[in-house]
Amino acid sequence: MPIVRIDMFEGRDRKTKQELVKSITSEMVRITGCSEASVHVVINNVAKEDWGLGGELAAIKFPD
Amino acid sequence: MPIVRIDMFEGRDRKTKQELVKSITSEMVRITGCSEASVHVVINNVAKEDWGLGGELAAIKFPD
Amino acid sequence: MPIVRIDMFEGRDRKTKQELVKSITSEMVRITGCSEASVHVVINNVAKEDWGLGGELAAIKFPD
Amino acid sequence: MPIVRIDMFEGRDRKTKQELVKSITSEMVRITGCSEASVHVVINNVAKEDWGLGGELAAIKFPD
Amino acid sequence: MPIVRIDMFEGRDRKTKQELVKSITSEMVRITGCSEASVHVVINNVAKEDWGLGGELAAIKFPD
Amino acid sequence: MPIVRIDMFEGRDRKTKQELVKSITSEMVRITGCSEASVHVVINNVAKEDWGLGGELAAIKFPD
Repeated sequence: MPIVRIDMFEGRDRKTKQELVKSITSEMVRITGCSEASVHVVINNVAKEDWGLGGELAAIKFPD
Repeated sequence: MPIVRIDMFEGRDRKTKQELVKSITSEMVRITGCSEASVHVVINNVAKEDWGLGGELAAIKFPD
Repeated sequence: MPIVRIDMFEGRDRKTKQELVKSITSEMVRITGCSEASVHVVINNVAKEDWGLGGELAAIKFPD
Repeated sequence: MPIVRIDMFEGRDRKTKQELVKSITSEMVRITGCSEASVHVVINNVAKEDWGLGGELAAIKFPD
Repeated sequence: MPIVRIDMFEGRDRKTKQELVKSITSEMVRITGCSEASVHVVINNVAKEDWGLGGELAAIKFPD
Repeated sequence: MPIVRIDMFEGRDRKTKQELVKSITSEMVRITGCSEASVHVVINNVAKEDWGLGGELAAIKFPD
């Protein structure tokens, strides 16, 4: 039943996402005792133009 | 005033989305007594690569 | 797999919540073709002091 | 530490987003006393096809 | 139509929340050109025990 | 910069939450290469009365 939502910068590849999902699910199971099948992870890939930090867009603060 | 947010797999067409919005709004009104005009529904279309279930990406678990 | 999140004013009783969950789940199944078991509904009960509308707290705009 | 998430219609340009981030961060600092560096703003650009209002998609209600 | 969601530490009083709602709504209107009536602000008051920063609960990092 | 939001049933103690925050932060750092200081984790403790699964409230499906 746990739902984990991750907002992070866009651009990660499928292998990284799969590793995240696997690892976070397994930590949720180990620490909270929930079943593996019940864990949902939803990734929200955010453009640097859509993330502000300290009053400035990440697109400006951290240009590629 | 109610805000309903739906995370679902991407790929639904506009007709399906309109039907969802209409039906869920009307159920919110019927059950909670809020006004129709006050109901917001926001759909978040999630790629299978961004959804993990039971420790595995849906992109791998349910390939197209 | 769909996740439905509802922000609404606090104060609804368990019967109303159960009716919401049942009805919204059944509409999700009917319209999107997902399985009933896969639908999650999470309710967020918001105090009127924590909801602003048109620049004013609902607690002030709609006093009990 | 505050996290501000904005759902709004897609289509705003970077200058508007930068202005939003700057202004909202500065108001958060002024009103809550948090540090500027701690404020996150995440923008979610929603298509009119994914936003329902009063039971109707914004794409239908407010065509471009 | 914009929806602004603020996660911040619990404990702010109603006056502060009203000021936040008023100011953020007015900045949304000024910068994006939306109508005042259409702006929703939802505040999520988070306990320090429910917020982790840099791997540590805020309850431990910033005890009262 | 990543923000991780966890919806789970209420009732976990502070030690469990601290373990979750520590472990998930460290996995985010290891897998995505972000800095430890940049990871936020926000826990949303959901009552069984506010969680629906397969059309039924968890409060009814899984009574304590």
